[in-house]
Amino acid sequence: MSSSARTITEKILSTKAGREVTAGDYVEAEIDAMVGHDVTGPLAIEVFESVTGEDGTVANPENVVFTLDHHAPADGVEAANNHNIVRDFAETYGTHQYEISDGICHQVMIEEGFVRPGDLIIGADSHSTTYGGLGAFGTGVGSTDLGTVFATGELWFRVPETIRFEVEGALPDGVYAKDLILRFIGDVGFDGATYKTAEYGGSAIADLPIHQRLVLSNMAIEMGGKAGIVEPDDRTVTYLERQSGLDVSLDPDLVSDPDADYEAVYTYRGSDLAPQVSKPSNPENAVDIDEVAGTPVDQVFVGTCTNGRYEDIRAVADVLKGEQIDSNTRLIVVPASKTVYQTCLETGVLETLVDAGATFQSAGCGPCAGYHQGVLGDDDVCLATANRNFPGREGSMQSQVYLASPATAGATALYGEITDPRGLETERYDDYAVATAEGGR
Amino acid sequence: MSSSARTITEKILSTKAGREVTAGDYVEAEIDAMVGHDVTGPLAIEVFESVTGEDGTVANPENVVFTLDHHAPADGVEAANNHNIVRDFAETYGTHQYEISDGICHQVMIEEGFVRPGDLIIGADSHSTTYGGLGAFGTGVGSTDLGTVFATGELWFRVPETIRFEVEGALPDGVYAKDLILRFIGDVGFDGATYKTAEYGGSAIADLPIHQRLVLSNMAIEMGGKAGIVEPDDRTVTYLERQSGLDVSLDPDLVSDPDADYEAVYTYRGSDLAPQVSKPSNPENAVDIDEVAGTPVDQVFVGTCTNGRYEDIRAVADVLKGEQIDSNTRLIVVPASKTVYQTCLETGVLETLVDAGATFQSAGCGPCAGYHQGVLGDDDVCLATANRNFPGREGSMQSQVYLASPATAGATALYGEITDPRGLETERYDDYAVATAEGGR
Repeated sequence: MSSSARTITEKILSTKAGREVTAGDYVEAEIDAMVGHDVTGPLAIEVFESVTGEDGTVANPENVVFTLDHHAPADGVEAANNHNIVRDFAETYGTHQYEISDGICHQVMIEEGFVRPGDLIIGADSHSTTYGGLGAFGTGVGSTDLGTVFATGELWFRVPETIRFEVEGALPDGVYAKDLILRFIGDVGFDGATYKTAEYGGSAIADLPIHQRLVLSNMAIEMGGKAGIVEPDDRTVTYLERQSGLDVSLDPDLVSDPDADYEAVYTYRGSDLAPQVSKPSNPENAVDIDEVAGTPVDQVFVGTCTNGRYEDIRAVADVLKGEQIDSNTRLIVVPASKTVYQTCLETGVLETLVDAGATFQSAGCGPCAGYHQGVLGDDDVCLATANRNFPGREGSMQSQVYLASPATAGATALYGEITDPRGLETERYDDYAVATAEGGR
Repeated sequence: MSSSARTITEKILSTKAGREVTAGDYVEAEIDAMVGHDVTGPLAIEVFESVTGEDGTVANPENVVFTLDHHAPADGVEAANNHNIVRDFAETYGTHQYEISDGICHQVMIEEGFVRPGDLIIGADSHSTTYGGLGAFGTGVGSTDLGTVFATGELWFRVPETIRFEVEGALPDGVYAKDLILRFIGDVGFDGATYKTAEYGGSAIADLPIHQRLVLSNMAIEMGGKAGIVEPDDRTVTYLERQSGLDVSLDPDLVSDPDADYEAVYTYRGSDLAPQVSKPSNPENAVDIDEVAGTPVDQVFVGTCTNGRYEDIRAVADVLKGEQIDSNTRLIVVPASKTVYQTCLETGVLETLVDAGATFQSAGCGPCAGYHQGVLGDDDVCLATANRNFPGREGSMQSQVYLASPATAGATALYGEITDPRGLETERYDDYAVATAEGGR
């Protein structure tokens, strides 16, 4: 270990703290952007009001974002009242606020240009680690913290140690970032990176398009990670320009130094990897798909902040173009944002899926947390592109959820049982380059 | 009154009873088709099983239809379990069963060819009066009745008296069947036709396309009607051929005789009528739109078995093409069936509405009964194309719901306040004739 070599996590938090810090140090830092949603937002607002009183001031309203995504459209009176609390607060204090069906907080934050490499971003949602896919330090906080930061604009952090996941070489056809992250979680365990940064690198990661890098960062929390970071590169710059309308110049120092101090390094050869499925009821139960192929499935759910982007939904449509889903299986598709929805509409992906038998909903979190739009009954078995499959997460405590990639989800919907997507003949959409922010798959 | 002159209601029930009956008689009759949904179906199944035991027989499984529409996709574990109860029963007994997002029971029954002029149809849903728009006798029953009829195939009825609503002359632009029925209910009161048939006739009714006649029949229950019937004609035959794939020949006797015995006759001149709005919180609170124009509205809901057909949704798109809904108003659109959804998709109506700011859901009952997909909070004011606005129907007991036509809904979404659709410049979809089952609007 060289005393001057630092991880990207240490570099970002040093810049934000205004002094050089390393893992284990405590820092107080200004927050570049923060987000609350319809579940956590009202709680944060309550804290803000109890801290500041009636005439409180939001420190930087231009950095404060609210989304209405978890119970959207409102699935009950309490949800509807929560939406109105958020709307009223946003109007009163001049913060940003997005509407029902505008999308999931993390996707909205990225699309709307609130996330840049090197930024420090918090969200009152555990999957705020997503922003690391763009080289930011993003992390989830409680509603109490968020409400306080509305007032102060700052928050303290303990600088996390880093675990690096390094993947070299090309990934086989049918293997995606989702398969990688399930494998990583399987290897370190659901608490194996608690309060640490999961840093993803190597040539296979560098080859991943941004929408797949976001999957890696998003699920860092499923091994306990405080953050999940991919070092930014030219792909990041292009993506932010096309997807978020941002003009970002790359800081060549915004990478981990070669001799940075890692708590552990896990290395993989891309060509060794098979599609992964996490069995009920923990993301760490990842196995090669062979082990569970053939398991009958009642419902396939495609969506969430993990795998609800256009490329994810298109991967399902690639499999189902001109086909019908199995008659004993339901397919529920919920895009991560209105932009994703509209892209699916323009490219014919939405029509393909509806014609194949899918139930296509407006953008939001969908049934991911078991609130609505496809909750599971006692005997239901589901395969989901989501991030969690804890007991009862998507409905009944007796229901069972398998986690997998969108390609596996498409193949599974087609045959009504868990199906390996490798070797399936699929029809690809010609308009890919037009519809997405960058090349690559 | 001539002793031999009969209403269409008396004629249908005489045929079904196999003897000549008149109002006040009791008949036992075979049911041509019956439907239960995800709320009432499981209750009916429980009754069936308690009546017949484990080895029960469904008398005519080919006449039994189930839909999953009220809580679809499942908005809770109980809903999901209810769906599975219905699926299991349908598979065991060989009945028809439609899936989540296939649509609302009444629309599905019509589209799938279960409804013919002269049929006797029951549904464990109060809006089963809808079928009268095709010249059938359709009526709602309790789940207990439905469960028993699964076993027997028959049910008793008291032959209802008839109240006739007669509208002569052309309707003004901007006035639709929805406006007529709100006016009728306003005039006779919410219980003014209790256990009677509401029969609709006159040249204005004869000029109505079937999708509008269905609105009249659908809302007969909102004045207490046992049935709501429009005499079938050539439009009916054409509609059934194109929409339902049925080859029906018109029985010239399937009309009320000129000197039939009516309990009351209400007559209207079409040209006198203005767009109607039923104020909170009873459908009978119908007023000319002038009286409430300008009322701010938080949410506009377009859908339901009343006004969730393609032509209804298109009427909203006509108003909103190239426009944006008011920034303080939400627009939630829920098509009545998957066929409607797909027609909206093919014709560009879906895209127009989403681009205008609408939240577009998969087919089902949506927020009509306050279960999910747009439930109202305490302070919310909604204008809906639905059938009921009783206190708390769509959410909070403090919320307020106005009922109106799709055209009024579109105009209201555009301006964020209740707006008269007359005189608005709208862009009509050229592909109308292609997309719908008959000419006319």
